[in-house]
Amino acid sequence: MYLLVVAVTFFLLTSLSTTASLPKTYHFHMGLFRDKGVVYKPVENVNLGPDSDEFYLQANVKAPRMAGFLVKIFAWFLESRIFGTFLLYILKRNNLIHKLVTNAELKESPVYVPMHPFEELKEQEVKHIDSGLSPSEQGQQAINCLPLPSEEIVNGLKPSFRRWTIMDYSKAYNSGEITPCMVAEQLVAAIRESSSPPMDMAFFINYYAEDILRQAKESTLRYERGEPISALDGVPIAIKDEIDCSPYPTTGGTKWLHKFRSCKGDACCVMRLRSCGAVIIGKTNMHELGAGTSGINPHYGATRNPYNPGMISGGSSSGSAAVVAAGLCPVALGVDGGGSVRMPAALCGIVGFKPTFGRVSHSGVLPLNWTVGMVGVLAGTIEDAFIVYAAINGPLPSHETSAIPLPKVYFPLLQSTNSVSNVILARYGKWFSDCGDDIRTCCSQALHQISEKFGWKTVDVTIPDIESMRLAHYLTIGSECTAALSSYLEKLDNAELGWDLRVALCVYGSFSGEEYIKAQKLRSRQMQFHRNIFTKADVIVTPTVGVTAYPIFDDALKTGELDYINGAALVRYQIAGNFLGLPAVTVPVGYDKNGLPIGLQFIGRPWSEPTLIHVAYAMQSLCVSKYRKPQVFYDLLKKD
Amino acid sequence: MYLLVVAVTFFLLTSLSTTASLPKTYHFHMGLFRDKGVVYKPVENVNLGPDSDEFYLQANVKAPRMAGFLVKIFAWFLESRIFGTFLLYILKRNNLIHKLVTNAELKESPVYVPMHPFEELKEQEVKHIDSGLSPSEQGQQAINCLPLPSEEIVNGLKPSFRRWTIMDYSKAYNSGEITPCMVAEQLVAAIRESSSPPMDMAFFINYYAEDILRQAKESTLRYERGEPISALDGVPIAIKDEIDCSPYPTTGGTKWLHKFRSCKGDACCVMRLRSCGAVIIGKTNMHELGAGTSGINPHYGATRNPYNPGMISGGSSSGSAAVVAAGLCPVALGVDGGGSVRMPAALCGIVGFKPTFGRVSHSGVLPLNWTVGMVGVLAGTIEDAFIVYAAINGPLPSHETSAIPLPKVYFPLLQSTNSVSNVILARYGKWFSDCGDDIRTCCSQALHQISEKFGWKTVDVTIPDIESMRLAHYLTIGSECTAALSSYLEKLDNAELGWDLRVALCVYGSFSGEEYIKAQKLRSRQMQFHRNIFTKADVIVTPTVGVTAYPIFDDALKTGELDYINGAALVRYQIAGNFLGLPAVTVPVGYDKNGLPIGLQFIGRPWSEPTLIHVAYAMQSLCVSKYRKPQVFYDLLKKD
Repeated sequence: MYLLVVAVTFFLLTSLSTTASLPKTYHFHMGLFRDKGVVYKPVENVNLGPDSDEFYLQANVKAPRMAGFLVKIFAWFLESRIFGTFLLYILKRNNLIHKLVTNAELKESPVYVPMHPFEELKEQEVKHIDSGLSPSEQGQQAINCLPLPSEEIVNGLKPSFRRWTIMDYSKAYNSGEITPCMVAEQLVAAIRESSSPPMDMAFFINYYAEDILRQAKESTLRYERGEPISALDGVPIAIKDEIDCSPYPTTGGTKWLHKFRSCKGDACCVMRLRSCGAVIIGKTNMHELGAGTSGINPHYGATRNPYNPGMISGGSSSGSAAVVAAGLCPVALGVDGGGSVRMPAALCGIVGFKPTFGRVSHSGVLPLNWTVGMVGVLAGTIEDAFIVYAAINGPLPSHETSAIPLPKVYFPLLQSTNSVSNVILARYGKWFSDCGDDIRTCCSQALHQISEKFGWKTVDVTIPDIESMRLAHYLTIGSECTAALSSYLEKLDNAELGWDLRVALCVYGSFSGEEYIKAQKLRSRQMQFHRNIFTKADVIVTPTVGVTAYPIFDDALKTGELDYINGAALVRYQIAGNFLGLPAVTVPVGYDKNGLPIGLQFIGRPWSEPTLIHVAYAMQSLCVSKYRKPQVFYDLLKKD
Repeated sequence: MYLLVVAVTFFLLTSLSTTASLPKTYHFHMGLFRDKGVVYKPVENVNLGPDSDEFYLQANVKAPRMAGFLVKIFAWFLESRIFGTFLLYILKRNNLIHKLVTNAELKESPVYVPMHPFEELKEQEVKHIDSGLSPSEQGQQAINCLPLPSEEIVNGLKPSFRRWTIMDYSKAYNSGEITPCMVAEQLVAAIRESSSPPMDMAFFINYYAEDILRQAKESTLRYERGEPISALDGVPIAIKDEIDCSPYPTTGGTKWLHKFRSCKGDACCVMRLRSCGAVIIGKTNMHELGAGTSGINPHYGATRNPYNPGMISGGSSSGSAAVVAAGLCPVALGVDGGGSVRMPAALCGIVGFKPTFGRVSHSGVLPLNWTVGMVGVLAGTIEDAFIVYAAINGPLPSHETSAIPLPKVYFPLLQSTNSVSNVILARYGKWFSDCGDDIRTCCSQALHQISEKFGWKTVDVTIPDIESMRLAHYLTIGSECTAALSSYLEKLDNAELGWDLRVALCVYGSFSGEEYIKAQKLRSRQMQFHRNIFTKADVIVTPTVGVTAYPIFDDALKTGELDYINGAALVRYQIAGNFLGLPAVTVPVGYDKNGLPIGLQFIGRPWSEPTLIHVAYAMQSLCVSKYRKPQVFYDLLKKD
């Protein structure tokens, strides 16, 4: 009881300091107490150059870190009728949602879906891929684009540490020295070890040893017959538990979703990988319903970072990032609705690749949102991300195709990377620098290095209203998630939900139709800004995240944790990739003073995956000599 | 005070009869009291044939007619903080919004914008129109498609009454017997007379006699020089006050909107008409902000029906329908966001034509919504609607074009109407019959007649969840209208708004982001149903409205009126045209026992305007012998 009083007092003090009015729903809007909204300039009057007077607004999150009992009290209050409405109003107001979104004035018409028209690529170093190829043929086409082994040591830099790649597996299997069965056995042992005390890495939500061994057996037989399906045959791949994949339930990181929605078979992307012969090793852990960025899941454990198991792996595709980092598989699939592939990839020191909105089928992925999420690839190297992207990207099933003709598929010719010239990188200085010191230094160095080495130009730009975009995206994904889940949630006992999710769902459900549409008007505005910036540059370069992996505290393990300050720093550079549907990739470029990985992000124009892969490959080639082995690492191709 | 107590008691009794729980916003959804939502079957499991067991749910509006003091009390309550929230909850619940939308379960992904892919037409009786033609060239192309004068009396039926058409004006002007100036003078006199007591028809919000006479003078000079621009030269055309048109302010039927948003020139569609030489005669009256269907505007008067000035003209494009019916101009422009062109056209006994979503530029039209509204044409005949549609439809300005390539333009060859064969009409019997007796009889006869005459087949179909679609559309247009106007409304004194609008805005603003998205899921579902139906039929045929024009009561004149029961009957057949973006046309087919007009509606597949014009022309040709002259009618081509 004492704690409860303390909590109430605390909230009233912290929250009421900036507000004195009552909560208002729409019918009070015309009243006296409405917050003043921002008046956004028309797009055509906004200067996007380096000399712009557009103000860079740092995220000013007004919500303290909470875990343990405090989260419970907070959730109880939010879920209460009267006080909850009041508290949500204050939260939204203090976090500038009213000022920057709800009450904002802007003339742009809403854009609801970030689907872009296809434009023919101008680049030379690409190859057009015929439509109608099978997943394994597309994968092979990608492999044909890779540099020859002799070219692998580019720029004279020798890798200081490298994970086994798809091609390493393929070569080992083809040589007969190692079989998929041998790998699978080591793998199962490694998963068991890492899943149990004292390690408790919480990589997986589900893995069935027999299913892994059965697939490996079939693959081994194919190799023995001399008939492997593709280079992916026998290669272990993990799948985020947001993607349907037989024989597993799809929990979405919950204890209940699979009870309402049964998994009826493989998602389209999984089916494509399976048809290449890949061995699906299980369903990776994730932030519950993807509604957070830490990867701390109260039901299945906090996924631990292989570079330092005391730290978070980031989320929501936490397990998919961690298993790749730990060497359990060269590639894993994730879903990226608000940086959920790129953030954990950066925190775990691997590559994360999110294609253009509409590029990969969403069939069989939990419909937690419809306009921001995309399947993405987490991999040890950009080459592996490319091969798997090639295999999973294909014609969309008819119910997903919109009125838009599907874009052509081009692959980058990585053999000629040294000749990729004239890439223009856009950098927004104030934004780029809004991160931890080590990240800023490391990313600036990497950017300097790549420009030096390849003679690429960096142009300084201004991207206005980034914080408004973050809020508009939050409001969008929140409303869509609510619409997606409400019919399940009504049948549910609250006790089955994690406490941090209960808080998130309260906020998610607090937005009005008006606010949702205002957010889409901001989307339209940002799409125009970005279109303009891409007339001056090929890619936008940023750090991937604003902080490196931070500690997992004990009080968060059972309740989950609310840490909107670190959360905002994690998503800071992610939003354009989701809200505007742009492709983006993160590449590991170094480590902070505690040895935690740092990623650099490239955001491309719509459908410019080949450029992104080219640029990421060039960046990676300059960083291989810095790469470090994680504390937790399994070498599955080791011959004992 | 007595009335107030009566009103409160009344609402509590009528409203609470079906509910016993408190209002809930999202964070209570997981609680005990959530209303049970409908579980919609997957689309593929729904039988759309005549033997379907899908239930036809009649609109069951739970809101009594209110006008005068009662509306004021209702608005006050709705605008109050605590009681308003409570009342809105009850209204939404009793009108099945919770059951059919909010808490509904359906698996379809949302579709936010009803943009359809273009498919090549299969029909023979059409002509492809080159892109790049000017508005007057396109108008001429349409004229070339019209039947020759000798063919005008088709089927041996002689018109019993006919309004002057564009071609009548053109011929009269070209003959020199009558000049645009002569017409303009008569027109100005007619407008003055009809706008003043005792007539007070409330046709216009603004008309400037000098501006009309100036345009007519210029046109007259062109004819004198033998250089008329097109058949539209000198033809009077009226514009709904929702569309920008110099030199007038764009009020949207309000007393305040133009103070915040100045009209900066002609809307795209007006500019195109002007370039054909049309004389723009002023801005027609409309329901305030288009937020109602009666056309009773408390600021500019209730637009009266030329067939019986004691009756409504329907809305929201009330003035545009009434001026055409009264002979002041052969054509007027309206905007159709929820039947706003077709309803008043039907009630006033004229043709109303709403093209496919995306066919006509929305530039310069008040952005009151973004996903349901379209410019439409009101005309005395389908030929005139066709000519003006031809002139205003053209390439969209770049900021309106989406990722979708623009569809080709085809015009119907009306000369060959007698040869239009094999049109298949779809009819949903229960829906078709859900209207007044006279309407049902008259529309059934018309349908029977057209099938007999042309040998067209009628197939019986079932269109499920029509009432759900109406609610989903209401929720969509309401949320979009709120997002469009909130920044103006906050600066406004409530006293400047009509009382019925104040009520509407309270309801419009009461929807959550979740509800908006659920509505878009219902949109997706209905688009699939309609796509399926259009594999079996070319057009869907319905009465245009469920009731004929009803009386204007004195108590509504100052406050506006709330009559959701008649409102629901008016919009009953409209929604697919807006929510699904389908083209639709209404043709007058008869009169009820009080001499009030009845319209029949054809709804076409996307981009099938030529078919609709063909079908409407055929229907009209069978009805011309029934047409009656309105009580209020001006004959502007009369030679005195």
